[in-house]
Amino acid sequence: MKTCFLHARTFARLRPRLKGLEAAVRFVTLDDAGKAHDGWTSEALDALPPLDMAFGNADAFFASVARDFMTAILKSPALDWFQSAAAGIENPALRMIGQKARLYTTNHTQAESMAEWALWQALDVLRDGPAHRALQAAGKWERVKAREIRGSRWLVVGYGSIGQAVGRRVSALGGEVTGVRRSPGPAEGAARLVAPDALMTELPRADVVLLCPPHTPETENMANAAFFAAMAPEALFMNLGRGALVDEAALMAALDAGRPAFAALDVTRTEPLPADSPLWRHPKIAITPHDSSDTPGTVAGADETFLANLARYLAGEPLTHLVDPAAFAAG
Amino acid sequence: MKTCFLHARTFARLRPRLKGLEAAVRFVTLDDAGKAHDGWTSEALDALPPLDMAFGNADAFFASVARDFMTAILKSPALDWFQSAAAGIENPALRMIGQKARLYTTNHTQAESMAEWALWQALDVLRDGPAHRALQAAGKWERVKAREIRGSRWLVVGYGSIGQAVGRRVSALGGEVTGVRRSPGPAEGAARLVAPDALMTELPRADVVLLCPPHTPETENMANAAFFAAMAPEALFMNLGRGALVDEAALMAALDAGRPAFAALDVTRTEPLPADSPLWRHPKIAITPHDSSDTPGTVAGADETFLANLARYLAGEPLTHLVDPAAFAAG
Repeated sequence: MKTCFLHARTFARLRPRLKGLEAAVRFVTLDDAGKAHDGWTSEALDALPPLDMAFGNADAFFASVARDFMTAILKSPALDWFQSAAAGIENPALRMIGQKARLYTTNHTQAESMAEWALWQALDVLRDGPAHRALQAAGKWERVKAREIRGSRWLVVGYGSIGQAVGRRVSALGGEVTGVRRSPGPAEGAARLVAPDALMTELPRADVVLLCPPHTPETENMANAAFFAAMAPEALFMNLGRGALVDEAALMAALDAGRPAFAALDVTRTEPLPADSPLWRHPKIAITPHDSSDTPGTVAGADETFLANLARYLAGEPLTHLVDPAAFAAG
Repeated sequence: MKTCFLHARTFARLRPRLKGLEAAVRFVTLDDAGKAHDGWTSEALDALPPLDMAFGNADAFFASVARDFMTAILKSPALDWFQSAAAGIENPALRMIGQKARLYTTNHTQAESMAEWALWQALDVLRDGPAHRALQAAGKWERVKAREIRGSRWLVVGYGSIGQAVGRRVSALGGEVTGVRRSPGPAEGAARLVAPDALMTELPRADVVLLCPPHTPETENMANAAFFAAMAPEALFMNLGRGALVDEAALMAALDAGRPAFAALDVTRTEPLPADSPLWRHPKIAITPHDSSDTPGTVAGADETFLANLARYLAGEPLTHLVDPAAFAAG
């Protein structure tokens, strides 16, 4: 009998899908009040038993109970498997869990929701949402020139799961997608795949430039003054990756100088972004609070990843999206 | 030698494509200052010659010169062919031209741009753009719950060129599209096609309801109190058809009562919408000034329709999108 730790809301949602595992897995839940229960029996638990597995999803990590959930895992004598709902492993809390768990698996289904964020932000700029809303507020019926995704040229820097989810959509809508990635291989949704050393020559011809590469020493501050100066004046810059990819002072200076035309950021260098940051107030920047993946579809996608890996785990089969333990090495 | 009338900007743009027609067609242009010229020679014309053909596109009809352009056509002794850039023929000025011209052809390429408008408006509601913008204005980093087009259910009322352009896109993004149309036959992008008498039973299950049927006595005020009461509370209502399809007082009352959640209107009953209309100020309504098709892509699409029909006209072949003259009969 293995013990699996998850949020009470997650267990309630998945319970019909977990039927038949009563003899194989004890589910231990934590609710938003910080109370632990046995999932199958609903019995309240004064203390947590040793944990073998845990599912760290949005229910657990975007709630008041996040710290309790994390602490319970780190205090457990051992942890055999941790399923994360996130794709990245840079988060310090996740790194600590990664150092403890024998098996650590990631999840990549949030790319679908993030790709819709990219369409949303691009359309709001191409359609000039700010001008339309200002005219509506003033009660003025004046036509606004708009552009289309159809026929637009996208440069997607980092062509992994997020980049391909964006590329598939943009291509379906009639846009032309160039992916930037070090490794060759399949690049669904892209008309072309180029290597990172072609970045500066590709930037000038893009209508939309989207960043979604991993954050590494090589990509840190990649979007700097020279990067923005190479963009087209009417182009849109978007960041779905990490805030540290962007030199934010250079971005604001570039927008003030008129190149690129607008920026949409789901991530910032400091998160939460302090209330006094000038990014909030810049008229050519749209900011969303790192919530581009925050949809019921993403929650459902992570559930499916967990259920599939749980079945593999119990069958003794290799898990998908397994992270090399070396990636969690200290330092 | 036939004489074709078009806007000076249109001729300048199309001139490379018109090469070889120097002996067959005299192009007479009107510029934004109201001056007429011979296109090929640039010679200024004091008076317009009799016109055989005219291309009435956005250059001509969304400019200061619109009235002059229209008057020139109506004063010409006869008109053999008029190519409109619009899909509809309800506009009073176009109806007068339709009564005069022997051949009148429409254009349906604006559906592509209009379909992107629908994606834009839907994403801004599903992502809760208003909440995100209010939080940004306040400098508050608070995640906002969003929904996706992927998995959403769309009811597209009127499944012609616009409906299908929307349906293709929504299906490609993973949404489920039901088209409502009287006539059977191909319905690209729709999972199902239902007849108008199924409308009231389909409304409750739709996340997004889009109106784009023709304006007829049967469709006038079709979106009334009963229509809105049948919608889901969290649903979005959009109108890309004509303002007269919607009972606007009933819409505002329905939004105030919490069903549907939001409305996006590219058309209103009175256009231009008067500055004192309560529609402008309603917090659950987004208004665009009938400019959903106003993109360079739409201009290019109309150009292609004109060029293709011009080639057919000169070859004595049947024109595409020819309107039955009976449609312009007075009354």
